[in-house]
Amino acid sequence: MIRTVELIERKRDGGRLSAEEIDALVQGYTKGEIPDYQMAAFCMAVVLRGMEPRETAALAASMARSGERLDLSRFGRVVDKHSTGGVGDKITLVVAPLVAACGLVVAKMSGRGLGFSGGTLDKLESFTGYRVDLTTAEFVAQLERIGIVVSGQTRDLAPADGLIYALRDATGTVPSIPLIASSIMSKKIAAGANAVVLDVKVGSGAFMKDLPSARALARTMVSIGVAHGLAVTAELTDMEQPLGHAVGNALECAEAVATLRGEGPADLVQLARLASSEMLVLGRRSRDRRAALARVDRALTDGSALAKLRDLVAAQGGDARMVDEPARLPRASRVETLRASRTAYVSAIAADRVGRASVHLGAGREKKGDPIDLRTGIVLHAKVGDRVERGAPFADVHVSGRSDDAAAVAEVRDAFRWSTRRVGRRRLVLGRIASGARP
Amino acid sequence: MIRTVELIERKRDGGRLSAEEIDALVQGYTKGEIPDYQMAAFCMAVVLRGMEPRETAALAASMARSGERLDLSRFGRVVDKHSTGGVGDKITLVVAPLVAACGLVVAKMSGRGLGFSGGTLDKLESFTGYRVDLTTAEFVAQLERIGIVVSGQTRDLAPADGLIYALRDATGTVPSIPLIASSIMSKKIAAGANAVVLDVKVGSGAFMKDLPSARALARTMVSIGVAHGLAVTAELTDMEQPLGHAVGNALECAEAVATLRGEGPADLVQLARLASSEMLVLGRRSRDRRAALARVDRALTDGSALAKLRDLVAAQGGDARMVDEPARLPRASRVETLRASRTAYVSAIAADRVGRASVHLGAGREKKGDPIDLRTGIVLHAKVGDRVERGAPFADVHVSGRSDDAAAVAEVRDAFRWSTRRVGRRRLVLGRIASGARP
Repeated sequence: MIRTVELIERKRDGGRLSAEEIDALVQGYTKGEIPDYQMAAFCMAVVLRGMEPRETAALAASMARSGERLDLSRFGRVVDKHSTGGVGDKITLVVAPLVAACGLVVAKMSGRGLGFSGGTLDKLESFTGYRVDLTTAEFVAQLERIGIVVSGQTRDLAPADGLIYALRDATGTVPSIPLIASSIMSKKIAAGANAVVLDVKVGSGAFMKDLPSARALARTMVSIGVAHGLAVTAELTDMEQPLGHAVGNALECAEAVATLRGEGPADLVQLARLASSEMLVLGRRSRDRRAALARVDRALTDGSALAKLRDLVAAQGGDARMVDEPARLPRASRVETLRASRTAYVSAIAADRVGRASVHLGAGREKKGDPIDLRTGIVLHAKVGDRVERGAPFADVHVSGRSDDAAAVAEVRDAFRWSTRRVGRRRLVLGRIASGARP
Repeated sequence: MIRTVELIERKRDGGRLSAEEIDALVQGYTKGEIPDYQMAAFCMAVVLRGMEPRETAALAASMARSGERLDLSRFGRVVDKHSTGGVGDKITLVVAPLVAACGLVVAKMSGRGLGFSGGTLDKLESFTGYRVDLTTAEFVAQLERIGIVVSGQTRDLAPADGLIYALRDATGTVPSIPLIASSIMSKKIAAGANAVVLDVKVGSGAFMKDLPSARALARTMVSIGVAHGLAVTAELTDMEQPLGHAVGNALECAEAVATLRGEGPADLVQLARLASSEMLVLGRRSRDRRAALARVDRALTDGSALAKLRDLVAAQGGDARMVDEPARLPRASRVETLRASRTAYVSAIAADRVGRASVHLGAGREKKGDPIDLRTGIVLHAKVGDRVERGAPFADVHVSGRSDDAAAVAEVRDAFRWSTRRVGRRRLVLGRIASGARP
């Protein structure tokens, strides 16, 4: 009989727990045998004392084991992707149909957004009627039929993670690399992935504000994957400025559609090509990176990637006409255009401020369960390094008559920093950590 | 509206809380508005991040404010005492009647023991019939009548402290100087004390294992007192070996009776004289330490201190004949005598091992609510520095036929360390920290 208090005390004092002890905590908590207050104290001890790699791997395994596990082995090699999230990050909307068009089965479980703009599920709901609550049976049937699903996580998948996350959210115990990494990876393990491509965002608009902490998170996730026999690749990518031009749910869907038509903004295209080619290689659909990139580029130009998005939206009950005519997507009532007061170069666009503006506009939620406005958001007409002529527009703010609209417009204006001298573009990819396992 | 999570996060990150914020936490928790899991996470953050003196004082004040406060002003200056507890620490049983005999009103709320031997309330219950659950009305009436009460804490006094302590006990958040100090001092403040004499034990048989941490605890308690206008004196005293000769409930009562007759062991007498004289000076019953000591010594020899214990036991329903005839106290069925295998000096008596032995004997409880055996315990015939002849007894173990008796006897034997060379006596008083306020 393991005494819970002793485990808490050991972690409090900087000690290490065995896999059995961690499992006793996780399963005991999931079954309701260990009370919230003990798990809360344990999580705070982990936040302040950390966990060793073996403990973190055991935690992820235990959470993955806490519920049903999806068996997707009949679909061959399953490659999942995950982004730690950032402002304007619509990469799943591009990459999922793109790699599915290249022959990879995409069984993606996504989430809703918090803090900044919406999550992938919020964004997809811009396609009126899109269902994100597929049952496991529907999920598998759709995979069989069209080879792609993007839906919400089923309740029975890694329930310990959902319970512990809700508790962490209420107890100030979110910011912990072992807890974040094991939360993410437990779901990938439970969802039946063989390989995972991770995008760890770094910067003001991301959870990880600096490269060392992003690298630590990436390393931890890769090592959890390795411990479970998964091939994992993590890219560290810039989130000092928003990704692409659009921030906001329907606006990001429109940008994803444009990208799948081969008309995307440079940074979004670069990241989509990178993630997609990684997935194709890990999924053994392409021999190497070069072959994968060629295949990806073909899908972006021959219309097959866009067709896959159309299939996905239609299969999940969404209005597929919106894919071909993005003007049908939900639209804000008014657009406030910001113009340059003098000719200058954009030297910075604070992603966190643009994210806050999106919350002011209703495009993101302040707290869980808040409704979201799919129509509003921001479209940047210039990114860092671009020159803007005096009087030319540098951003559009799509508003819908909320009391915070003016604050949002001011926030977007203040997010921009200007320079009279030429400014270089930001590097998008800052590093890469891979499991080293042969794909 | 203060958001609880933000307060937890600030403490987690090493920040400081205002008195208003701490009060919102404490009162919110006491009213049930803040859930256990948030308070548990907060306590763990305090354990690992600490509190500044102003925060600790605010915490004590807030807990004191959480329930009723005793107004004892009609009794003049009220001086309380508190010991952080140790093995063989029966000092309240001696000091309370002693200073009451010298004219100080003694309104003492005590507790039960955990871990090592029983607490003051457990010990007093050795006087068959002794009631420890006086109502506030009974408490005050007895004070009026005989000037001394030793009872349990009333439920309405600092209820926040009781709630938080129970939570800390279940969440591994006990060992924190700010939390321990504010817990102790909140009760002294709520109980209407004007001054407090603290005995902070240091050593293997105490909660504080080393002098620096004991000194930190003492300083923190003194500074809380000062912040509330109380005069506080803290003595740091040795707990590497048990205090006095007796360990165990009825055995300690017998030793207290002997001490009040002027026949106590040297260390217990020394400590009782010290604490009592401090109390008389702080209570303005004596002009200075020297006058106080003279008065104390008179009470120990003229029978008035013993008479006060008799009055106390009788007033609270106990069998007062046991005070005059300690042989009537509950007795164990058998005594195992340990004898020296060779002539040697005692170089150490590990207080923690003697304490563990008392738990094996049933004289102390492993966990809250466990019953206690009043009869069993240990009597040391030699202390550190004493020479014991080959074959002479150095300890008696009073057993009552429990399965752990043999383990207890072995533990007591192993607690003794011997030296063939002369060993000095241990210093009893290791330091003193006083509020500096004129008494």
